[in-house]
Amino acid sequence: MMPAPDILVSEVGPRDGLQSVRQTMPTAAKLAWIRALAATGLREIEVASFVPAALLPQMADAEAVVADASSIAGLTVLALAPNLKGVQRAVGAGVHKVTLPVSASRSHSLSNLNKTPEEAVAEVRRVCEWREELRADAAFGVEVGISTAFGCTMQGAVDEDFVMRLAEQLALAGVDAVGLSDTTGYASPTQVRRMFKRLREALGDKAGAAHLHNTRGQGLANVVAALDAGVTTFDASQGGLGGCPYAPGATGNIVTEDLVFLLESMGLRTGIDIQRLIEARALIADGLPGEPLYGHVPDAGLPRGFVYADGRAP
Amino acid sequence: MMPAPDILVSEVGPRDGLQSVRQTMPTAAKLAWIRALAATGLREIEVASFVPAALLPQMADAEAVVADASSIAGLTVLALAPNLKGVQRAVGAGVHKVTLPVSASRSHSLSNLNKTPEEAVAEVRRVCEWREELRADAAFGVEVGISTAFGCTMQGAVDEDFVMRLAEQLALAGVDAVGLSDTTGYASPTQVRRMFKRLREALGDKAGAAHLHNTRGQGLANVVAALDAGVTTFDASQGGLGGCPYAPGATGNIVTEDLVFLLESMGLRTGIDIQRLIEARALIADGLPGEPLYGHVPDAGLPRGFVYADGRAP
Repeated sequence: MMPAPDILVSEVGPRDGLQSVRQTMPTAAKLAWIRALAATGLREIEVASFVPAALLPQMADAEAVVADASSIAGLTVLALAPNLKGVQRAVGAGVHKVTLPVSASRSHSLSNLNKTPEEAVAEVRRVCEWREELRADAAFGVEVGISTAFGCTMQGAVDEDFVMRLAEQLALAGVDAVGLSDTTGYASPTQVRRMFKRLREALGDKAGAAHLHNTRGQGLANVVAALDAGVTTFDASQGGLGGCPYAPGATGNIVTEDLVFLLESMGLRTGIDIQRLIEARALIADGLPGEPLYGHVPDAGLPRGFVYADGRAP
Repeated sequence: MMPAPDILVSEVGPRDGLQSVRQTMPTAAKLAWIRALAATGLREIEVASFVPAALLPQMADAEAVVADASSIAGLTVLALAPNLKGVQRAVGAGVHKVTLPVSASRSHSLSNLNKTPEEAVAEVRRVCEWREELRADAAFGVEVGISTAFGCTMQGAVDEDFVMRLAEQLALAGVDAVGLSDTTGYASPTQVRRMFKRLREALGDKAGAAHLHNTRGQGLANVVAALDAGVTTFDASQGGLGGCPYAPGATGNIVTEDLVFLLESMGLRTGIDIQRLIEARALIADGLPGEPLYGHVPDAGLPRGFVYADGRAP
């Protein structure tokens, strides 16, 4: 067993990334990529989305991907499911955790989920109730990252008090962890620090991950602010793949390679090997020919004399 | 008179940017670009380098550029000069401030300046002594940003205590402000916070600017850390133009457009208009056809509902 990392980096590329691109990565290429990602030391990967294949053909092989990923030792396999039905499919396929979408912007929620924020919370409540009934038979985690928590391309500002009320309702509904997502790249470090601090005060240990975008180049600046506020789980996507297909201009997950470098150079152990991570990019290029990949560390390489937070040389 | 900004953004593109590219921007194009930059609200621009034209043909028109820039109302005109002779030329041309190069890495110092760090400090001392003699006749500022303060592509780690000793020697020599430069993109937020805190403890009001690079995508993350340590002046380059031509792989000044957005969205007044800044990029494209420009805010635009720190709408 490896020691627990200081920070959990949750890789969302195989779900959030792949569902945002036009091409569909072949199943075999997905499995090879996910195995390569797990071999870098990543301990949690969001591998699929359990939505109808007609809506997202890129995710039509969700069952097969989860089946393979859940056989990787030590890996927490996460999937997105939009509702109870999707959760039941995901749990049947063998995921360890599900994440459900709730959006704080009313217009984003309606266009993305065809639900009001309140209806989305009600759906999450149904999922938690179903889990209660199952408890003896099956154990799985339930998480929510509140989308557009820092602002919305459609409605502009999002009321912070409303975001906090949603978070509290979700925690009361039985969700294990509630995070905040900057779906649109609107967040500033000041806002990130303030809102994650409020989240922790309101939810205690149920305060969850920061999901940050680099749309305006502010992604890692916001990570520094979230660390100050005590966040210990960060979503990121290899090569910066993905964003949100339903929020215009919302491209740009923070890049896993650059995030891991940031954390390790700050003395925070992630357990992830940056060199292997850079090598794994080749598998995206194989599975999605011509798709643009982002990130600075893959181009610049590690600094001369770099050591990981645990003292290891690269 | 406009109120003083909370943060001074010092634009280095016309010097640091232009001397790092192969093409030479024509003088008329430089003057148009500098005037456009000043019209965005930038209050300080590093416009030229007073080195022999044989070494840097891009800077052969330094006198003409300074003469024009120093006629712009309210603008502080800064130039780099490698030695007393260059400073005398710069002051003769009418600059308000000079910045002199001192590098903490012995190998970078020798290859870049053909001087040891101690010899570079001695040259700065001569400049300050000359200014003392002139004091009745001419007033100009003297600044140093210590290069490779966070690590060096040639020698790897740079001793922090040595950086602080250099800073103290420079302050004692009579320099007005001593900053720290991450010439190579090696810095982490932890290191930036610690070193600027030490700098302020050692130098008080003479603690100067942060000059940060985005080589590994960490530029704005390091800005957040520097703000925590009380830094109030940041160098940046429009479009991320430039780096250091003598430090291999050291491309990537932080992008002025993204920096100003960061600061304003954190509630820190810069006095700079982001929309005008984005428009000024066209003048780089005119003067340096085909040169790549960086930055996320120019592509993504301002968020819906964005307001500046002073409450102004864009």
